[in-house]
Amino acid sequence: MATFDISNIVQSLYEARHNWRQAQSRDSEPGGREFPSRDALAAILDSLKGVLFPMRLGPPDLRQESENFHVAHALDAALHALLKQVRRELKYNAGLNGTPGHDVDDQAQTAIQTFASALPRIRTLLDSDVLAAYQGDPAARSVDEVLLCYPGVLAMIHYRLGHQLYLLGLPLLARIVAELAHGATGIDIHPGASIGAGFFIDHGTGVVIGETAVIGERVRIYQAVTLGAKRFPTDADGKLQKGLPRHPVVEDDVVIYAGATILGRITIGKGAVIGGNVWVTHDVAPGGRIAQAESREGAFANSIAAT
Amino acid sequence: MATFDISNIVQSLYEARHNWRQAQSRDSEPGGREFPSRDALAAILDSLKGVLFPMRLGPPDLRQESENFHVAHALDAALHALLKQVRRELKYNAGLNGTPGHDVDDQAQTAIQTFASALPRIRTLLDSDVLAAYQGDPAARSVDEVLLCYPGVLAMIHYRLGHQLYLLGLPLLARIVAELAHGATGIDIHPGASIGAGFFIDHGTGVVIGETAVIGERVRIYQAVTLGAKRFPTDADGKLQKGLPRHPVVEDDVVIYAGATILGRITIGKGAVIGGNVWVTHDVAPGGRIAQAESREGAFANSIAAT
Amino acid sequence: MATFDISNIVQSLYEARHNWRQAQSRDSEPGGREFPSRDALAAILDSLKGVLFPMRLGPPDLRQESENFHVAHALDAALHALLKQVRRELKYNAGLNGTPGHDVDDQAQTAIQTFASALPRIRTLLDSDVLAAYQGDPAARSVDEVLLCYPGVLAMIHYRLGHQLYLLGLPLLARIVAELAHGATGIDIHPGASIGAGFFIDHGTGVVIGETAVIGERVRIYQAVTLGAKRFPTDADGKLQKGLPRHPVVEDDVVIYAGATILGRITIGKGAVIGGNVWVTHDVAPGGRIAQAESREGAFANSIAAT
Amino acid sequence: MATFDISNIVQSLYEARHNWRQAQSRDSEPGGREFPSRDALAAILDSLKGVLFPMRLGPPDLRQESENFHVAHALDAALHALLKQVRRELKYNAGLNGTPGHDVDDQAQTAIQTFASALPRIRTLLDSDVLAAYQGDPAARSVDEVLLCYPGVLAMIHYRLGHQLYLLGLPLLARIVAELAHGATGIDIHPGASIGAGFFIDHGTGVVIGETAVIGERVRIYQAVTLGAKRFPTDADGKLQKGLPRHPVVEDDVVIYAGATILGRITIGKGAVIGGNVWVTHDVAPGGRIAQAESREGAFANSIAAT
Amino acid sequence: MATFDISNIVQSLYEARHNWRQAQSRDSEPGGREFPSRDALAAILDSLKGVLFPMRLGPPDLRQESENFHVAHALDAALHALLKQVRRELKYNAGLNGTPGHDVDDQAQTAIQTFASALPRIRTLLDSDVLAAYQGDPAARSVDEVLLCYPGVLAMIHYRLGHQLYLLGLPLLARIVAELAHGATGIDIHPGASIGAGFFIDHGTGVVIGETAVIGERVRIYQAVTLGAKRFPTDADGKLQKGLPRHPVVEDDVVIYAGATILGRITIGKGAVIGGNVWVTHDVAPGGRIAQAESREGAFANSIAAT
Amino acid sequence: MATFDISNIVQSLYEARHNWRQAQSRDSEPGGREFPSRDALAAILDSLKGVLFPMRLGPPDLRQESENFHVAHALDAALHALLKQVRRELKYNAGLNGTPGHDVDDQAQTAIQTFASALPRIRTLLDSDVLAAYQGDPAARSVDEVLLCYPGVLAMIHYRLGHQLYLLGLPLLARIVAELAHGATGIDIHPGASIGAGFFIDHGTGVVIGETAVIGERVRIYQAVTLGAKRFPTDADGKLQKGLPRHPVVEDDVVIYAGATILGRITIGKGAVIGGNVWVTHDVAPGGRIAQAESREGAFANSIAAT
Repeated sequence: MATFDISNIVQSLYEARHNWRQAQSRDSEPGGREFPSRDALAAILDSLKGVLFPMRLGPPDLRQESENFHVAHALDAALHALLKQVRRELKYNAGLNGTPGHDVDDQAQTAIQTFASALPRIRTLLDSDVLAAYQGDPAARSVDEVLLCYPGVLAMIHYRLGHQLYLLGLPLLARIVAELAHGATGIDIHPGASIGAGFFIDHGTGVVIGETAVIGERVRIYQAVTLGAKRFPTDADGKLQKGLPRHPVVEDDVVIYAGATILGRITIGKGAVIGGNVWVTHDVAPGGRIAQAESREGAFANSIAAT
Repeated sequence: MATFDISNIVQSLYEARHNWRQAQSRDSEPGGREFPSRDALAAILDSLKGVLFPMRLGPPDLRQESENFHVAHALDAALHALLKQVRRELKYNAGLNGTPGHDVDDQAQTAIQTFASALPRIRTLLDSDVLAAYQGDPAARSVDEVLLCYPGVLAMIHYRLGHQLYLLGLPLLARIVAELAHGATGIDIHPGASIGAGFFIDHGTGVVIGETAVIGERVRIYQAVTLGAKRFPTDADGKLQKGLPRHPVVEDDVVIYAGATILGRITIGKGAVIGGNVWVTHDVAPGGRIAQAESREGAFANSIAAT
Repeated sequence: MATFDISNIVQSLYEARHNWRQAQSRDSEPGGREFPSRDALAAILDSLKGVLFPMRLGPPDLRQESENFHVAHALDAALHALLKQVRRELKYNAGLNGTPGHDVDDQAQTAIQTFASALPRIRTLLDSDVLAAYQGDPAARSVDEVLLCYPGVLAMIHYRLGHQLYLLGLPLLARIVAELAHGATGIDIHPGASIGAGFFIDHGTGVVIGETAVIGERVRIYQAVTLGAKRFPTDADGKLQKGLPRHPVVEDDVVIYAGATILGRITIGKGAVIGGNVWVTHDVAPGGRIAQAESREGAFANSIAAT
Repeated sequence: MATFDISNIVQSLYEARHNWRQAQSRDSEPGGREFPSRDALAAILDSLKGVLFPMRLGPPDLRQESENFHVAHALDAALHALLKQVRRELKYNAGLNGTPGHDVDDQAQTAIQTFASALPRIRTLLDSDVLAAYQGDPAARSVDEVLLCYPGVLAMIHYRLGHQLYLLGLPLLARIVAELAHGATGIDIHPGASIGAGFFIDHGTGVVIGETAVIGERVRIYQAVTLGAKRFPTDADGKLQKGLPRHPVVEDDVVIYAGATILGRITIGKGAVIGGNVWVTHDVAPGGRIAQAESREGAFANSIAAT
Repeated sequence: MATFDISNIVQSLYEARHNWRQAQSRDSEPGGREFPSRDALAAILDSLKGVLFPMRLGPPDLRQESENFHVAHALDAALHALLKQVRRELKYNAGLNGTPGHDVDDQAQTAIQTFASALPRIRTLLDSDVLAAYQGDPAARSVDEVLLCYPGVLAMIHYRLGHQLYLLGLPLLARIVAELAHGATGIDIHPGASIGAGFFIDHGTGVVIGETAVIGERVRIYQAVTLGAKRFPTDADGKLQKGLPRHPVVEDDVVIYAGATILGRITIGKGAVIGGNVWVTHDVAPGGRIAQAESREGAFANSIAAT
Repeated sequence: MATFDISNIVQSLYEARHNWRQAQSRDSEPGGREFPSRDALAAILDSLKGVLFPMRLGPPDLRQESENFHVAHALDAALHALLKQVRRELKYNAGLNGTPGHDVDDQAQTAIQTFASALPRIRTLLDSDVLAAYQGDPAARSVDEVLLCYPGVLAMIHYRLGHQLYLLGLPLLARIVAELAHGATGIDIHPGASIGAGFFIDHGTGVVIGETAVIGERVRIYQAVTLGAKRFPTDADGKLQKGLPRHPVVEDDVVIYAGATILGRITIGKGAVIGGNVWVTHDVAPGGRIAQAESREGAFANSIAAT
């Protein structure tokens, strides 16, 4: 039976941690871990999905006459679980900002109440997203199929809940909520983005939507679309400036086909159609249409994109 | 300890559900939930993988001399579990179509028997896919590695089982099976597509293959390839027409490199090679080669595709 | 209650397996299964994450004063679990190579000791990756957020551990480790690639980095970037030649924006910037800049990239 | 690796089952299993404990202001789960009795409603049992300790719920409920017994209380007490007669010490005290006292009661 | 946050272990643990119960037409799992006896085959036990109730399987099997005892049956009956002599009521009836009857048997 | 589908709780539940068993060379988990006593440190118990069998740990620890009892040992032995007086056979032997022997102790 030189490795790992903590000025970490928990948020999100859509995403044995019992209990439990995570982020943020954090409990309480009050509106927005997918995809057979099968709808549930957290000053929780969907769908929507009703993402893998993007109503996008930043402005010291509007504004009723890349604080006007794989860094007029030139058959240069 | 205003939120959520159900003409939902279950299908798929490849994807302690015992028992249990889901879809479809659904039990029984009979042929097709990957990838060291590690093979197991369900008139189950693979691999193959033996997808993230695509034998594709529709024909009322052939036909022995986009009911002729990132909307002759022009070094416009 | 014709299907499945095994010259499989286990490696990786970052990725109730106890115990258990998997791969490889495999136990023992000794250095490299992400992303608020939320960091933890296994002659374990991250993030880094300190992948979905790629320090890449092979050289018999350098060399401080495709054994010189969606198959000089021509508004050919 | 002669054993086991079923006249068992499930009842009992005592036996994170939400939801779910088991017993009983069982669903529905209505009264009775234990045991420090730690209280929760099922014509469910407590505590109370308020069993291991026993209020008993039958009357054919009163009547305020055996339809009068290890087969007058003669030191016959 | 003096305690615990191992002459324990596992045996027993009674104790969704598939697979898996435990006991015994243990694998293989062949006969014996309980208890409503609810039947399943292991020279496995039932039922039957068909234990808590007891057919006993040893003979050195017949012989058709204590190698003749709580250390003739004198009301000495 | 009248029942249950709380003067329960958790203690006990006997009761894959790593980590985690429970009891006790409870954290910290320091001594005591069982039971084949299979040893592990908690002023935690063993073994040892080294309980079901019992070294007892109180003294108000010595003192080397009942603050002198089923309420001299008169065959009064 094998014996390994555990003690020396443990010591070296300790030194590596020590170096990092010194470099980060945090060698005197408090005893426990007070960072929001990804697993806890995953469980909370699962509960909230059942609160929003009890007969579809709630417990499998639920009956309609008991919906309200389930909703009341699950909501109550989920909110108290979320309260614990909110407190952690607020304390953590207070630590980052060097503020005292005395009123973290009151802030958390208020944030949760506001978050809870927003849920009925979020449900209605998600209904509009489901309907948009149903109406926009020739393959969709029912709104139930859309709700249960479409990765774009899963991403939107996470986005609309995470966006609410973001608005409440909880960017870290919002980010975790977004990454849970990103991992499951390949769709990466920053919770800071603003997205109107009736949004539909088809297929979705590779979609990236940036923090300051603004999207109107009834917009439809396909897989691998990027709504990104064109450049990162820096300040006089060469540091990245944060929070400046740097992603596109996409007005109502725009369609953006797969693989299109749209960069910078430009505006895609109402009703415009952006073709697949195109590269856009200037405004597009309302009703405008941008297309990719087709590749032609010709001298083949043995170029391949595989590994 | 916090108390939230649960009762009001529960009431508002109830109203949101009520509005949706009225708009969808379904406020009198039957007591229970009778929609196919994603979790149940995930478990069934896991069992069927062990039925198809008992020594590799079956229980870890299986021995070869007991393979048939395991296969018989697991197959029997999986088919009966699937039968329950098939009944749910058939009833649901009958509800959608306004048909009485009297013979749902007989239909389900027949569908399962047909599905089961197809499994040996599906195993043989999957063997051809595994072999294609092994022969087509210089990094592959053994067929076992391919079966156990390659996301493209996982996607094909789901596709070939889901396609069989699709052919049996069970598009919803087929879709759920496909989405389970999509979530795990980033490969989105519609179960309606038709794909011949020896199909190999390398890397795979971002691949999209549409419902009416027809793919021959020994075809090889790389990550982010789209076989999509060029347009969605609408009928006189402006509604999307469903079921029309609208995705490419890809003949035998074609290779399509990463990021290529091939759109519409065009034909990529036998043995053609489509280069990476190209955009094709017209037929390509047998043996033809399409390549992307290389980007050149030049004036850099501060264009970046990041958020 | 339904009865299906299980016995015939079991027999046909048996024949399909028999045919495959005969074709693969392996009908006399040994009794049990001795292939490395994906599930076991997933558990080992989870433990090692806690060993490397005990207060962030270790057990939630850990306290800093107990870090070393946890690290010692978890490391010891993880190494012995890994030892079992290493033995399996070495035996399997011996089988493939037709070598006797007498010294598999000694080899495994040595490999684990070497692997363990590398862990402190891997921690330090990962610290540099976390810092690079924090400094390179205007949205990042803290190094903790980066470690816990960024899929690119998850992919790098798997890469740096898997790469170590690859160097120790364990390509199959390394591959499984890589695929675990690929499935969770959509980022596909071959464990054979060589990547320097301070590497940052943003968003990440669709990134593919090939086996012989060589990446310097402080490199930054975005989603859907491919560092691929331009062609697969074949030998006189038409068989793929393995192991030849066929992927790009990317020098220090390069930035590669989303969707760029860089193919073949070319060199991207120190400090170069590669724009989004470009296609590069020749060397780029140090400090060079490559950009995509912008798509223009014009005749719209009804081309869409959706299914 | 070992191979066992499975097929022959399977065949012999089949024959053993076949013989049994023929002897029991039931070889044509219906396809599935429709017997009440011990596991299901265990889960239902756990839920009902939380319904009755939400802050002590409900979910650990419950808060008092949410009690009613929890109670409503858990009660609703538990009753529907119980409904399924009630239907199974009623169908099974109809099969045993050779009655058609047409109205099983209505009967089940009615039984559950009656059962549910009895729960508040059961809670009040259990409160009296808890109080009796607290007042009767010099070691008890609080009513909470009694509720959470005393096996006698656990047995009474099961008894009072199971007795209600027994009264509703569900002797099998009642029996399973009783055996769940018997296994956990060593206390075997037949659900047919009738037990008044304020009943306290201390220690409890080995207590047996028979089906027709009648116990008044404020009775206290200790471990290994038996309230049993003196003889089993048989009918003219020598078959056991069922349902006849054959166990003791124990009036209010009686105390029975450990190991006492009380047999037959006798009456232990109000306020009587029965000493430990005694053997009683005749009535005891109200206020009467029965004691065991003490063993004396003497010739020791090497008699030991060990194995 | 608290810090405890872990290191010193760890050191002291190490010394305590060291002292024990030295005293037991086993300080050089081999690397791993090779003792049979209680958890593993619990799982094996659960499987074997389903093998013996598939429609009652097998998986809840089993259908009768699939019984043989389930039985074959579960039996195969359970036997191989048991094989591993048998090897451990044989090796352990070889270590205790100082024998080389070369042929442990062959012995284990043979033992398992013999054990498996006995299963159909064990099923038939258990059927006779179930029938005896059904016929002997006025409260029993069906053989199914007896099989599923009666602790005495659970104890007999464990006894009959454990006894077979005991006969095969595996006393430790047999003991673990017995203790699993003892913990669940309070019935302690030594696996070395010999028990004929149609044995019925009612209630059962506190029953103890010793290693060399011999019990005939159709015997019935009640709770707290002891069939024990009268004395433990010692050898010339004062050490306990092992394996001598020291427990009662109970002939066919005997009934022993609750709490009776029967000690030593005496014979209870065919058809005898032993009353409750009696104490017997001499032979009882066939058809004999032993009864307890009744306790009488009288001077009450404040004697109570409670704590 | 059934609908039950949930709302009314919820309301009635609320009223039942309200009545109870008013009667108990505790209607204003604090928001959450702060009572020690049985489940948490069960987990802590499992960990501590592995700390005390790492190679036998620790994780199954432990190796001897890693014992200390495991012990350190598991001990650290178990102590912190126990700390939480200790705080709960101390707060709860402060509430019961009406004391402020300011120093609960310090008290808890001290209690845990003392508890931890006692562990090596407890291990040594348990070693003496194991050895006593091995030497006292002719059926025991090895000390390992005793440790792993004997319910009496399990009960002693719980007793020795629980007794330590009792001495530290944590009677509720101690009681829960004792009841966990009581439920599993039928052995009910009050944690307040004092028991010397080398204590052996054989079979054990039904054993009851009271709070103030004092037991010397090398004592051996069998199943169903009671060491109980003879009477409960009451004070002037008729209330039970607590804490008075009321259970037997059993001196060194005493043997007590099955079913014996020993009551009151009497002394069983060194080396005495108490026969089975006897009833003792006066002192027994050192070396004394008490035996049960044998029951004789005679008029059988149809007395049976069954239900």
